[in-house]
Amino acid sequence: METSKRPGGRSARVRDAVRRATLAELSEHGMRGLTVENVAERSGVHKTTVYRRWGSVEGLIADALEMAQEEPWPIPDTGTIEEDLRGVARLVQSGFDDPELGPVSSAFVAAAMQSPEAARALHDFFEARHEQSAQVVRRAVDRGELPVTVDVREVIRVAVAPIYYRLFVAHEPVTERDADRAADAALAAARAGVL
Amino acid sequence: METSKRPGGRSARVRDAVRRATLAELSEHGMRGLTVENVAERSGVHKTTVYRRWGSVEGLIADALEMAQEEPWPIPDTGTIEEDLRGVARLVQSGFDDPELGPVSSAFVAAAMQSPEAARALHDFFEARHEQSAQVVRRAVDRGELPVTVDVREVIRVAVAPIYYRLFVAHEPVTERDADRAADAALAAARAGVL
Repeated sequence: METSKRPGGRSARVRDAVRRATLAELSEHGMRGLTVENVAERSGVHKTTVYRRWGSVEGLIADALEMAQEEPWPIPDTGTIEEDLRGVARLVQSGFDDPELGPVSSAFVAAAMQSPEAARALHDFFEARHEQSAQVVRRAVDRGELPVTVDVREVIRVAVAPIYYRLFVAHEPVTERDADRAADAALAAARAGVL
Repeated sequence: METSKRPGGRSARVRDAVRRATLAELSEHGMRGLTVENVAERSGVHKTTVYRRWGSVEGLIADALEMAQEEPWPIPDTGTIEEDLRGVARLVQSGFDDPELGPVSSAFVAAAMQSPEAARALHDFFEARHEQSAQVVRRAVDRGELPVTVDVREVIRVAVAPIYYRLFVAHEPVTERDADRAADAALAAARAGVL
């Protein structure tokens, strides 16, 4: 139980413990099973402290998303845009297939539909992801594989959108082949000059 | 209040009233404000009847989705695949922009993330939508505008996915230009033979 009032390092450790507990609870029980009580118990931080600092389940999720944003995202660098873009799409697809990461990522998407605070946090998260992933497109432009006029972030959106669409809108399964096809479609569009 | 026990026409009218009330409540208050109580009051059907036949908010949503599936979906037929596909994408984009339809559609997507029953209903809804919309692609194949090998449903998925991705994943605004660009990208990919 967290009863100390010391700020600074102690405060950062409390925050870290709560964010980790939020991710672990999300991974095990999903958005529907996430409660302030469970996060407090798992983190060893007093419930009233969690309520005071995070306010609600949505506040916990928004904060955990900020942490996720800082996680390394292993952007591929294979030397060709075909493989790099497929790599980005496969990272997304395999992430949702991962038994630990998948439920957490799905919970983030679900939470953002229910809470404006979580939606803002998810928006920032994806802005960072798009910016980072767009690096593979910028390198392709530098190598002369794509026109300099290409909208690098839009290529990323189009390359991953069908994966999210299947998962969260049409509720269809997503295979590695679906990920490759989404990446190939984005690349064909970029080459044709429509992105 | 619904107190009669007569089956048949009466039962269909009760169902219709409850489904309409569900849509109206969703439109006004979204998923978060939808309750069995409000739907019962609005429809004039007794609360216990609603609980018995629909079980829960998720049951109400799943049933309302079935009704939405039967609504006409005005697939364009302009004579060119460019315009037809843009028309499909714009139907999606303008639907979410519509002050009445938008909140209902968003509520369906949100509900499906929280309830397997709503997810199955939404899956069936999109299967019907894909099948219907794919007609514009089939006509393009018949006119010789696209290869006969094209996956007609996948062209539709790719043409609309970026709209849903912006709305429900990245939480970004979606303009008509974004809709056009998504349609153009799908078409370029179909022409390149990757879909």
